[in-house]
Amino acid sequence: MPLDPVSLLKDLVRCPSVTPADAGALGHVEAALAAAGFECHRVPRGGIDNLYARWGAKGHARSFGFNGHTDVVPVGDPASWSTDPFGAEERDGHVWGRGTTDMKSGVAAFVAAAVDFVTETPPDGAVILAITGDEEGASVDGTRALLDWMDTRGERMAVCLVGEPTCPDRMGEMMKIGRRGSLNAQLTVRGVQGHSAYPHRAVNPLHALVRLCDRLASHPLDHGTDHFDPSTLAIVTIDTGNPATNVIPAEARATLNIRFNDSHSGAALTDWLGTEAAETDAAFGTRTEVAVTVSGESFLTPPGPLTDLVSAAVAAECGVTPVLSTSGGTSDARFVKDHCPVVEFGLVGRTMHAVDERVAVGDVHALKAIYGRILRDYFA
Amino acid sequence: MPLDPVSLLKDLVRCPSVTPADAGALGHVEAALAAAGFECHRVPRGGIDNLYARWGAKGHARSFGFNGHTDVVPVGDPASWSTDPFGAEERDGHVWGRGTTDMKSGVAAFVAAAVDFVTETPPDGAVILAITGDEEGASVDGTRALLDWMDTRGERMAVCLVGEPTCPDRMGEMMKIGRRGSLNAQLTVRGVQGHSAYPHRAVNPLHALVRLCDRLASHPLDHGTDHFDPSTLAIVTIDTGNPATNVIPAEARATLNIRFNDSHSGAALTDWLGTEAAETDAAFGTRTEVAVTVSGESFLTPPGPLTDLVSAAVAAECGVTPVLSTSGGTSDARFVKDHCPVVEFGLVGRTMHAVDERVAVGDVHALKAIYGRILRDYFA
Repeated sequence: MPLDPVSLLKDLVRCPSVTPADAGALGHVEAALAAAGFECHRVPRGGIDNLYARWGAKGHARSFGFNGHTDVVPVGDPASWSTDPFGAEERDGHVWGRGTTDMKSGVAAFVAAAVDFVTETPPDGAVILAITGDEEGASVDGTRALLDWMDTRGERMAVCLVGEPTCPDRMGEMMKIGRRGSLNAQLTVRGVQGHSAYPHRAVNPLHALVRLCDRLASHPLDHGTDHFDPSTLAIVTIDTGNPATNVIPAEARATLNIRFNDSHSGAALTDWLGTEAAETDAAFGTRTEVAVTVSGESFLTPPGPLTDLVSAAVAAECGVTPVLSTSGGTSDARFVKDHCPVVEFGLVGRTMHAVDERVAVGDVHALKAIYGRILRDYFA
Repeated sequence: MPLDPVSLLKDLVRCPSVTPADAGALGHVEAALAAAGFECHRVPRGGIDNLYARWGAKGHARSFGFNGHTDVVPVGDPASWSTDPFGAEERDGHVWGRGTTDMKSGVAAFVAAAVDFVTETPPDGAVILAITGDEEGASVDGTRALLDWMDTRGERMAVCLVGEPTCPDRMGEMMKIGRRGSLNAQLTVRGVQGHSAYPHRAVNPLHALVRLCDRLASHPLDHGTDHFDPSTLAIVTIDTGNPATNVIPAEARATLNIRFNDSHSGAALTDWLGTEAAETDAAFGTRTEVAVTVSGESFLTPPGPLTDLVSAAVAAECGVTPVLSTSGGTSDARFVKDHCPVVEFGLVGRTMHAVDERVAVGDVHALKAIYGRILRDYFA
């Protein structure tokens, strides 16, 4: 009998697994997978529980992996929901609750697809599920921990699909083949305090900072690449905190965020920021400190066998060919990409992280069907 | 018998006349003046006491005025003083205490000079003293109140000397013949909030603000004029208060201070700021509000009979010809200049507003001698 993904989804939603709590969520997944013959390993790290499950031989050259998470973001004020956020109520053709979109439906769909697939047509190869409880949090002890553990154990996926929501409005319209990188830089400009009436006796850090920020913000980083939009730079805050109009402050700070495509690296952008700051310092007599945090490098799985496989399955099930996109924020694909080719495909994400998060029951079944077709086609 | 300015100074210092308190200070001045035949009027306004005193006929074409104040700034922590700040101790050739420099010595010196002058050589003309208790505070009910009162009563000074400290290091080296104007402008730039990853969907007010600030700060306002240093513009603070690196803020603010010479007016500078802001808004799609406060317009008493009179008296008494300066902050001369030509001459200001404020006893006598010589020469 096929595994019902909606039933599994409801079990998962009823576990209030707000990061870092698991609240029993991985247990439901593990039970379903173990019953179908998957070898299951808990991979705890830093107070987070993670689950690694493999059907088939370790190290097999044909091994298809799914990645996802069972943790969810907080519900906010429960009173603002029209239903119990952990009640998994089915109403108006939807299942309601925190995580229904992001991404317990994705997990339920690929677990159900994998169980049915290995049960009905046992493949010559391996099906792997790497499911974490730390994607919405720091993401330090989640997919990273699973990949580290896999490395030490010789566990490999040949390719991987991350089941995050990827469709803006309609089921099937978009898949993600990469993501832009992101970095934050804090600029701290130090000058010499003084009296506003005698600026020549002071070194005004704000005059240097506005020049530097204008130069950075005006500089086109690139004009886009084959699969990426142009990189962007946004100054997000400038702060001084000087209440006295007759005082030139000693120090001023700015923070900027860069979303960068595959024509850049975090290191090269850091160098560029440092060079621009040094030139400004030379012109103004200031000392600027540039503190950069690279949240993630850009990455891309170029169109090829994996993207064709997923695209064809989506087209067959939904009647729409998904756009290959690199838009959006970040996901655990940024870790998986160092392990194997990775793409992302999942639900419509409109209600993710929102009050009254919900998923259309039909979409959960459709997603399971797509994942099942991907598995059949991969091992065909 | 000549009036001893040091004795009067000590009486004044012993009155803790921290703005707005008078603490009896004007009473000492009034007693000395009334005894010498000055017609005295208290001119209270807004809880502040002020004193107007005239010797000679009202409305006389030859009328020399002195302006000064008996209020003082707070002492801070009295424990950090080496003496009682209101004790007027004489030690090491100095009188110590709050207001000894700024400017109870100036008041004592011109009161003593005026009393001696009208007693010894009664002039054909009028000697006027306009003394306020609100110079260190808001300055709204001080010299302004005296000038308003004089206007309604037909009281006029033909020329006026403000007795503020004017010498940086050595007695006699500098007099003030004008002051730069000062203006504060708060720029509030409004854009459209958005996600840092999608800056094209937002309007970043900071990108407009840094361009605008850089343009303003880079623009040379002038290259100085005959009697003034170049005007200056200092950005003193930029603040946003946005803690989220993934959010483009809706609004950002900057404050700048302009010190401007006689080639500008507050109104013309306000227009210039508005034009620059409008051009930036047109380029960035922002809406910028420019709120300007003009603290004072620039003013100048050009070299001529009054400056020659004061300069010659200083040179005769001190052996040094004072530089004619327009440097420094602001003083009540900015109000007097609308009434009559005004210059400023007084003590070395080094300890004004500082802990252990003090004045050399010899300098008080020298200042009285200078003021006395100015009166004799004016009426000669």
